[in-house]
Amino acid sequence: MNEFELIDLIRAECALQRPDVRIGIGDDAAAVEVPPGCELVVCTDTLVAGRHFPLNTRPEDIGWKVLAVNLSDLAAMGATPAFALLALCLPDADANWVRAFARGFAELSAQHRIALIGGDTTRGPMTITVTALGFVPIGKALKRSGAMVGDVIAVCGDLGAAAAGLRYLDTHPDCGRAYRLQRHRTEHQWVDRLDRPLPQVEQGIMLRDIASSAIDISDGLVADLGHVLRASGVGADIQLATIPGFESIREHIDADVAARLVLSGGDDYALLVTMPQNAFEQARSALIASGSSLTAIGLISSEPGLRIIDANGNSVQCDNAGWDHFA
Amino acid sequence: MNEFELIDLIRAECALQRPDVRIGIGDDAAAVEVPPGCELVVCTDTLVAGRHFPLNTRPEDIGWKVLAVNLSDLAAMGATPAFALLALCLPDADANWVRAFARGFAELSAQHRIALIGGDTTRGPMTITVTALGFVPIGKALKRSGAMVGDVIAVCGDLGAAAAGLRYLDTHPDCGRAYRLQRHRTEHQWVDRLDRPLPQVEQGIMLRDIASSAIDISDGLVADLGHVLRASGVGADIQLATIPGFESIREHIDADVAARLVLSGGDDYALLVTMPQNAFEQARSALIASGSSLTAIGLISSEPGLRIIDANGNSVQCDNAGWDHFA
Repeated sequence: MNEFELIDLIRAECALQRPDVRIGIGDDAAAVEVPPGCELVVCTDTLVAGRHFPLNTRPEDIGWKVLAVNLSDLAAMGATPAFALLALCLPDADANWVRAFARGFAELSAQHRIALIGGDTTRGPMTITVTALGFVPIGKALKRSGAMVGDVIAVCGDLGAAAAGLRYLDTHPDCGRAYRLQRHRTEHQWVDRLDRPLPQVEQGIMLRDIASSAIDISDGLVADLGHVLRASGVGADIQLATIPGFESIREHIDADVAARLVLSGGDDYALLVTMPQNAFEQARSALIASGSSLTAIGLISSEPGLRIIDANGNSVQCDNAGWDHFA
Repeated sequence: MNEFELIDLIRAECALQRPDVRIGIGDDAAAVEVPPGCELVVCTDTLVAGRHFPLNTRPEDIGWKVLAVNLSDLAAMGATPAFALLALCLPDADANWVRAFARGFAELSAQHRIALIGGDTTRGPMTITVTALGFVPIGKALKRSGAMVGDVIAVCGDLGAAAAGLRYLDTHPDCGRAYRLQRHRTEHQWVDRLDRPLPQVEQGIMLRDIASSAIDISDGLVADLGHVLRASGVGADIQLATIPGFESIREHIDADVAARLVLSGGDDYALLVTMPQNAFEQARSALIASGSSLTAIGLISSEPGLRIIDANGNSVQCDNAGWDHFA
């Protein structure tokens, strides 16, 4: 398969059309319309094989995940996704691999009506970069810097499952992604969360006019909450037992390990938001009504730093690092 | 140096601000304004170390080149560049390397008033992906598909120098980029063109209302003209001796090799445009007046295929492939 056959194959799988795409794949660049009254929101994220996903990850899951991690960033801005570009660097052009990869990418694209409008294919070590583009009404993008003293800290989605799945794969490398046939197994559901993260796109849009700040939790709760606290110039107190995901993981794993997974495991792609206390219940009801969730885990404080308390009132120690790709 | 120090270092070097950037580097995504009456034009290109540039290329030149190749794509659409995102995958975080890389990137950014608005840094084999964004008045983007029978085929810029530089490096690997001190040497000027391609940004904008089709020549003239001919459903006749760059390279290199370099060497980042014959002289004058050039190399024909004739009227054979990254 040559480069042009490879591109044709991806185009065939990712065929979703949108009327606001003036020029799509196949020219030097794409041209798209941005709705009046909206800003363009754009982000880019790279996945490196063996670093951001295990080497034996199924290609359809890699295709899903590389789009998902970018949609999670748009979600944290409250943006409506619209377009994506795909820069695919592969050691060889295996048609079956590329077709499966493109199908996973297309599956998530279709859920959010995202058009693939361009990209690049090169030969080299497997690294995959997606650029995602979306819209937000002018001035309405959620930022990390808006958290106010007294705000509720809440998580939309749950934490720790992907990290628990990665941990499970360490000891069961040959569970080998036959797991889709065994969704009744908790451990396999965890692996599924690792492979197929669920970006909180609609939830981000719903929270756009309510939240005072937002970030997507990709490097772990402690690290990403740390970004919000620094950007907002505030501190926080959170209760470990209230973190969504903690209790269910603790049913299967030692409490200390479960705490580490939800606090700093990473790969969660949940949303961390802050909002005034009087707005929380209504936001929670709206998200539950739409089949989602919103869980309060603590409060923003004027006292700098992050304090984590367990169910017995004891302080939980957690290294603040999260994922540093160069540590 | 950790990931955040690395990002801070890049931000410090790439500090150009624009008023249309609502949210820049440092949040989950960037938010920017698109001018009323304009479409957004966007492209992405990856450079792989050892494949798209020699391994001993200076980091400042890599930084320049990864932006340049993307600006060349925007230029081929007639777009005005505005923003860029940088996804940097590096084997290690060497501060001197990153600073030099960012300086080269910033140098070209400054020339075109481009703000770096986001990106990603990961550890892995060196692959660098830039996404470039720009604007074009609605409906005015140049496409590959507009070439008409009888149109002049013209090149803005010249061809073959980068490929000649790469060929020179094969036999002089240790010319080692001290070449900046020896700009009087033709071979070193060639290497400079390889390392520091000059995207024809202003030229693309000037040609926007004149050209019937456009493409940037990155994979070689024959390959890229082939894309235009297929997209437009036409053929072409070109004269080898008229190709800008051919005669000057032939002064130093055997004519057959010189022909191959200008026809299929690649890495040119010149613009290939077509336009009605009665528009050519005025376009040429306008480009010359702005310090650039426009050279007619042939005509669009109703007869399918590409025919290349040398100064003696003989047909020149050239494999049609250009660069196929998976061949």
